[in-house]
Amino acid sequence: MADELKLYAASGSPFVFRVELAFILKGVTYKTVEENIKNKSADLLKYNPVYKQVPVLVHNGNPIPESLVIIEYIDDVWKGYPILPQDPYEKSVVRFWAKFIDSTCILAILKVFGSNGAEHAIAEAHKQLQVVENKLAVEGNKFFGGDNINLIDIAASFIAYWLGMLEEGTGIKFVPKDKFPKITEWADNFLKVEVVKDVLPPRVIPPKAQLLAFFKQRFGDS
Amino acid sequence: MADELKLYAASGSPFVFRVELAFILKGVTYKTVEENIKNKSADLLKYNPVYKQVPVLVHNGNPIPESLVIIEYIDDVWKGYPILPQDPYEKSVVRFWAKFIDSTCILAILKVFGSNGAEHAIAEAHKQLQVVENKLAVEGNKFFGGDNINLIDIAASFIAYWLGMLEEGTGIKFVPKDKFPKITEWADNFLKVEVVKDVLPPRVIPPKAQLLAFFKQRFGDS
Repeated sequence: MADELKLYAASGSPFVFRVELAFILKGVTYKTVEENIKNKSADLLKYNPVYKQVPVLVHNGNPIPESLVIIEYIDDVWKGYPILPQDPYEKSVVRFWAKFIDSTCILAILKVFGSNGAEHAIAEAHKQLQVVENKLAVEGNKFFGGDNINLIDIAASFIAYWLGMLEEGTGIKFVPKDKFPKITEWADNFLKVEVVKDVLPPRVIPPKAQLLAFFKQRFGDS
Repeated sequence: MADELKLYAASGSPFVFRVELAFILKGVTYKTVEENIKNKSADLLKYNPVYKQVPVLVHNGNPIPESLVIIEYIDDVWKGYPILPQDPYEKSVVRFWAKFIDSTCILAILKVFGSNGAEHAIAEAHKQLQVVENKLAVEGNKFFGGDNINLIDIAASFIAYWLGMLEEGTGIKFVPKDKFPKITEWADNFLKVEVVKDVLPPRVIPPKAQLLAFFKQRFGDS
């Protein structure tokens, strides 16, 4: 039986992009099921009852939610391009940094938009971005993965592409390029990678009021 | 060369406990380096410059921070007791739930203490605990891992043991047993497991003011 691979997706989502990029790197073809985020399908709610969010990968009927969990699964099932290293120690380092960027760092960024640019939120986001900046500076590589992108680059793709759109859309510009030259250089390199260019969604800036309302609801102080 | 395994730890930490339990399940011996959380060692700051927290495992000089990252490493390196399943799909399910409990669920609980029992924080914690309750009810197993504990049980150990101490210490009792009978039953089963009993730290209730100040600083609304 041929594998049946369905990816529940939503155009423009940075989290869906991560999974699509992983599939392209592996050379695996899949079918996309486009979700309407304002009117989610019964299938999406059944496959991801906890978070009710895309992406969800359904492989031969087995649902897997959460982008980084999906990518570890893809790397476990399909050989070819290594998204995580094989060596257990190197693998743990990659898991640590992907998790740091996915949770601590991106969350701090989202809270800037959620708080409509509050000073304490910007200070926290700068602090976490500085951790990433220092890592790139110390290692001096083209990508987090060295000469080629790996799970950390994929996790950080939000910073390379979506962050700029959100800054422009909300008018909250808080990541000066001269403060984070290594991140800027990494983002330039990342966005030049052929497979990345193939999968990146179009640059679309939603209206400011809509963006701010969305982020306040999701990432504002509760 | 024999493996050199040093675990930077702090008595009573639920996150250190997770790693100790994983080592005991594997039958691997290690050396503990006790940290003074109020005066952290230069080694701890060097090995975990991002979070500056225990646990950190140092294996033949290679540092690994973050309890769940450490446990995946332990499961990758040492065979024997399987902490994660071998099958990629089952493994992804375990990763999903361990991450949900570690981040979403426990974070919601910690915010109850951080907000000194605010109503909205209690409602959110109840909502996330209900997700866990439903999972146990649907599956009807003794443990999240089935007949034996796995990574999900280890991630959830905070709920089985530390949550009750914090409720008692702070006086904020918000998890009624009759509302979560399956979680209560699971916790009873978990705390009866011989290896769990061997590693659990003593029941110690810090003073209320100290607890509330700690949680407000770490998990209060910012």
